[in-house]
Amino acid sequence: MAGNTLGNIFRVTTWGESHGDSIGCVIDGCPAGLRLSPRQIRDELTRDIPYPVLTRRVETNNFQILSGVFEGYTIGTPISIIIRNSNVESDKYKKIIHTPRPGHADLTYRMKYGHVDWRGGSRASGRTWISTVAAGAVAKNICKLKSVAVTSRLLELGGYKVNPDNLESVIESLAEESKETNDTTGGIIEVKIKNPPVGLGAPMFNRFQADLGHAILNIPGVKSFEIGSGKYSSRLKASLFNDPIDFKEGKIKTLRNRAGGVLGGITYGNPVIFRFAVKPTPSILIPQKSVNLRTMKSAMMSTEGRFDANYTPRAQVVSEAVSAIITADHLILSGYVSHDSIIPRKERLLFGMQTRDL
Amino acid sequence: MAGNTLGNIFRVTTWGESHGDSIGCVIDGCPAGLRLSPRQIRDELTRDIPYPVLTRRVETNNFQILSGVFEGYTIGTPISIIIRNSNVESDKYKKIIHTPRPGHADLTYRMKYGHVDWRGGSRASGRTWISTVAAGAVAKNICKLKSVAVTSRLLELGGYKVNPDNLESVIESLAEESKETNDTTGGIIEVKIKNPPVGLGAPMFNRFQADLGHAILNIPGVKSFEIGSGKYSSRLKASLFNDPIDFKEGKIKTLRNRAGGVLGGITYGNPVIFRFAVKPTPSILIPQKSVNLRTMKSAMMSTEGRFDANYTPRAQVVSEAVSAIITADHLILSGYVSHDSIIPRKERLLFGMQTRDL
Amino acid sequence: MAGNTLGNIFRVTTWGESHGDSIGCVIDGCPAGLRLSPRQIRDELTRDIPYPVLTRRVETNNFQILSGVFEGYTIGTPISIIIRNSNVESDKYKKIIHTPRPGHADLTYRMKYGHVDWRGGSRASGRTWISTVAAGAVAKNICKLKSVAVTSRLLELGGYKVNPDNLESVIESLAEESKETNDTTGGIIEVKIKNPPVGLGAPMFNRFQADLGHAILNIPGVKSFEIGSGKYSSRLKASLFNDPIDFKEGKIKTLRNRAGGVLGGITYGNPVIFRFAVKPTPSILIPQKSVNLRTMKSAMMSTEGRFDANYTPRAQVVSEAVSAIITADHLILSGYVSHDSIIPRKERLLFGMQTRDL
Amino acid sequence: MAGNTLGNIFRVTTWGESHGDSIGCVIDGCPAGLRLSPRQIRDELTRDIPYPVLTRRVETNNFQILSGVFEGYTIGTPISIIIRNSNVESDKYKKIIHTPRPGHADLTYRMKYGHVDWRGGSRASGRTWISTVAAGAVAKNICKLKSVAVTSRLLELGGYKVNPDNLESVIESLAEESKETNDTTGGIIEVKIKNPPVGLGAPMFNRFQADLGHAILNIPGVKSFEIGSGKYSSRLKASLFNDPIDFKEGKIKTLRNRAGGVLGGITYGNPVIFRFAVKPTPSILIPQKSVNLRTMKSAMMSTEGRFDANYTPRAQVVSEAVSAIITADHLILSGYVSHDSIIPRKERLLFGMQTRDL
Repeated sequence: MAGNTLGNIFRVTTWGESHGDSIGCVIDGCPAGLRLSPRQIRDELTRDIPYPVLTRRVETNNFQILSGVFEGYTIGTPISIIIRNSNVESDKYKKIIHTPRPGHADLTYRMKYGHVDWRGGSRASGRTWISTVAAGAVAKNICKLKSVAVTSRLLELGGYKVNPDNLESVIESLAEESKETNDTTGGIIEVKIKNPPVGLGAPMFNRFQADLGHAILNIPGVKSFEIGSGKYSSRLKASLFNDPIDFKEGKIKTLRNRAGGVLGGITYGNPVIFRFAVKPTPSILIPQKSVNLRTMKSAMMSTEGRFDANYTPRAQVVSEAVSAIITADHLILSGYVSHDSIIPRKERLLFGMQTRDL
Repeated sequence: MAGNTLGNIFRVTTWGESHGDSIGCVIDGCPAGLRLSPRQIRDELTRDIPYPVLTRRVETNNFQILSGVFEGYTIGTPISIIIRNSNVESDKYKKIIHTPRPGHADLTYRMKYGHVDWRGGSRASGRTWISTVAAGAVAKNICKLKSVAVTSRLLELGGYKVNPDNLESVIESLAEESKETNDTTGGIIEVKIKNPPVGLGAPMFNRFQADLGHAILNIPGVKSFEIGSGKYSSRLKASLFNDPIDFKEGKIKTLRNRAGGVLGGITYGNPVIFRFAVKPTPSILIPQKSVNLRTMKSAMMSTEGRFDANYTPRAQVVSEAVSAIITADHLILSGYVSHDSIIPRKERLLFGMQTRDL
Repeated sequence: MAGNTLGNIFRVTTWGESHGDSIGCVIDGCPAGLRLSPRQIRDELTRDIPYPVLTRRVETNNFQILSGVFEGYTIGTPISIIIRNSNVESDKYKKIIHTPRPGHADLTYRMKYGHVDWRGGSRASGRTWISTVAAGAVAKNICKLKSVAVTSRLLELGGYKVNPDNLESVIESLAEESKETNDTTGGIIEVKIKNPPVGLGAPMFNRFQADLGHAILNIPGVKSFEIGSGKYSSRLKASLFNDPIDFKEGKIKTLRNRAGGVLGGITYGNPVIFRFAVKPTPSILIPQKSVNLRTMKSAMMSTEGRFDANYTPRAQVVSEAVSAIITADHLILSGYVSHDSIIPRKERLLFGMQTRDL
Repeated sequence: MAGNTLGNIFRVTTWGESHGDSIGCVIDGCPAGLRLSPRQIRDELTRDIPYPVLTRRVETNNFQILSGVFEGYTIGTPISIIIRNSNVESDKYKKIIHTPRPGHADLTYRMKYGHVDWRGGSRASGRTWISTVAAGAVAKNICKLKSVAVTSRLLELGGYKVNPDNLESVIESLAEESKETNDTTGGIIEVKIKNPPVGLGAPMFNRFQADLGHAILNIPGVKSFEIGSGKYSSRLKASLFNDPIDFKEGKIKTLRNRAGGVLGGITYGNPVIFRFAVKPTPSILIPQKSVNLRTMKSAMMSTEGRFDANYTPRAQVVSEAVSAIITADHLILSGYVSHDSIIPRKERLLFGMQTRDL
């Protein structure tokens, strides 16, 4: 059961269904004294749908910080964020209530839970990850305290390699094609964690890349995870694979980065780089073979709800968020960020009081 | 850090400050198919202030279930409940912002977090436990599935033994006295978990009474916890203390219950009975010695905010809630309640669909 | 299931049965660079049986540190400690295999697990806590880093108040009496955590006293837990109960300590003081009423195995150990102890290498 | 800190260094009544080094079950297993104590812990995973209760595709080549979990493939993880990717398995199939560029300790073990395996007693 919490010390618990009243998260374990403005969260939420042309449901994402922040700074208590659902059209889903959509969680939710919310994918919808994106904004603030930056870029869309020059045109043609063929496509994303301090991660079952991989593989539609040279590593000899150790700007680093920034599961200062693949959005208008759960006979079905021609750019936004959450968690676990590192003990009794006339 | 989650598998995470926008909880790990009506939650919330005469802040406790429930039944996803704060008066707290109230968390929050919400006790206020009471309503529903009932009663108030006959008059006189003396009182509560199935709890560090004790000792103002004969046990010889094993209604039980329903930390069918003591509400109008954190000099202070003449009856409501949460968690951990026990596997694919014409 | 781990970040997992090959623990989350000598562990293990006259099984407690320590210092990996069982006499237990001993876990283990090791109490024996005592030695070393000391004293034995003057004679008379009457007694213990830094504990469900109470209530035979004024608090008015805040040796403290060193679940520098009661050892030679599980008929039984005339002094040793473990866990959680606080980052690359000629 | 435990309810904690006294694990959360013979563990340990020609350190792996098993069956208490180290040669490592080996954890352990055991890779050695293999034997027994089988096969070694026909010759030539070139190679492995029951996994952060991916990515040298069609999924359109739903042997399944047996993170009966890549063993005799930590100058170094020409077949054995552990954990979490499913409640009081004359 459960499974709605990410992180060990910096813990994000999310809740909400696609067509429910709202969606949200509770962030526990955030140190006190961290600057947190609604604008930072809004900026991340705005990125939720980077290319509207690929998406048929566009939300305004009105949100509210309900707790944990006072006068612009965190106070060490849980940060609760709520985001209203507004743009929902549930009726179309009624028609397919008995025929699970191939490639969707319809079948497995029914098998596992029995009683399900049949509207809009419920908890399995990509929509529900908007609360994780909000939590990612808080995590990024923690990363910034140590000058750690989480960035990402699209490597492939629909099988095409993309770069800043051709990205817009690839997206437009994929959107166009999707409308014509009623079919969808996937893609590949690269995430880079820049400037990680040494020592994030632990030897056996909390290797930094494993915690990142776990987070990434939980994003809907992700089918692979590769760190550094990834799969290709298996085809190199050690003399070519091992990154020679040397100095760079006065610090010990490896000049090459086939390892992807981790050795023995622990960071050493090199950027952590990984890639993952996203499958095509499962909802399509093309008729597909399924089963009618009422008659228990085979049945053809096609979806009518809104769907994304390509979900990859939205998965990219989510991937930054979960990477930031895992990094923030490890920064705290490893002692880099703490109540102390933000408000030194000796200043605590008077913090925030000195400039006020109360 | 953290610390806002109760339970292992059935997990309740709470959030919210006394004078913030709202207060709430997220319940993760509740099996699907559990009947859950808003009325059940409302009934528990209404109990929040059992004797208004003892309390100066009375809330209407408007709440909303935001997720996890569909058409009256849980769906296995997190249940998010929000309760609005309305009746807040923050101004009085401004005056004492520099002088922590004795017996309160004012001093320790300042020491631990530095930046604090100074209004109304913030996260330390008894008010914040209303979300736990809401979660307790869900837990009680789980307990009912196995005919387990969590009940409680007041044993003492302000040093007076109470029973159904004298309770009302004791409460009235304590309220009266509090107004006159500007002072407050505490009390003692007994909780009984009736009809527990055999086998709840585990040998070393998850003994059922230890998990219960942990939950109870987290309630604001609780200073003691006793299971069965409690402290008195230490003054008996084993021949008098050990509960003889025998049959009762065809089941193996002990006829006496000095153990309080646990042996080796595990239940065996006897009711689990424990008691705990609640200190007097710390807020009083009588001047007390404190320290001005700005001048770092001794200073007298008296509180002006609203407070409870006796917080014990509210702690009683909370104690039932946390006891139900711990019991529900152990019922699930021990395999008594599961997705299966509510909706059998073979019925899942069609659950909730049979009576509808879709 | 599970339940054999204590602590959140500093985690102690214990294993072993009373009459099995051996007993042990794995301590995970201990920072690197901590001095740890076998003598420190031996010293604690030697205390296991403080008054042999009260105990019929005396072990030599040969132990070995199997991992996690190199050249006298911890290396950040799990510390595995093993203690051999030697002095076992299992035959007597065969005779009572079908008749659970009143006051023992015999009945509940059978109900919960079905298949049990019937020898010597198995996992429920006080013997199995020797591994927790070993782990406590490591925890005490962590406490020492911040000058925190965990101490304890016996308050009552067999109903008699004890002090350094009468302790020996009370113990002798209780041992004598036990031999004559074949009966056993309990007692009351006080634990004091001296010099805790400010800020241990967290608001809702990880209040420092609740985590301590949880640990203590898991010790076999413990029936009550009281922090500060404990149960008596409920009979005081706030004006008498609240500890006035003042300065002591230049630090903000409360001069009185009715709260027992915690406010809002968080420490502020005052010593943390609590008491708990231990029931009489359940094993007695006096015939008691039980049930024969084979015939399902009532049956009288008396134990023949060895037992303690009074288990309280051994529970006292265990209570110091678990208190030290909880304190160490909170010291790490609160950022007081870390890899950094032991070996500063800038010295790590060369630590332990400077004085060696390699 | 920490990080040495795998699993949520079925929890495996491992300990031990490569050249320490011994290596071991504690398995907590295993239900009682499970048949467990030393032979089953021995069989798995024997597989540890499937192709000795690829490996220079061969251990006899003498092990002992120290607790948790009585008369051939588990008793619900922690299962402690110890494996002695015998074949250690530490001296060679002294020479490279100041120059971390490229591709190894030498550098990061030094950065993170400061004080390290410099012998034989310490906790980062592949050797330390032998205890996980032992725990995997217990997990496989749990899987068998539900007829779930975890199998695996080598897909590539040193860049060569392998199959049962050419496997032996590829291994021999890689071993030969390694001796000649003093270099090492990697490979690719496929794992299949056959016959999983429906409903393993949970929606958000405990998707079955994410928990598997996390476990696999923690194995030393693993650089990628792919479920189902993996990376290739991103290049297919949904109409080709989505697995049509149909019946197979009377059960609802998908006939194709591009999803790899999970939908929405939850199993539905199809086999769960994933692949991962292993980098070449980092230890090589060829001189490599590194840094002398004492002089803080660049330095060439070559390893002299024993190493594996190709570690992939050993990673394969470990991958089966962790996959079995994750599957066992989910079988218990999902209610398929419990105390009840092994020894029904009504039989518990007499289990194991009926056939004995005591």
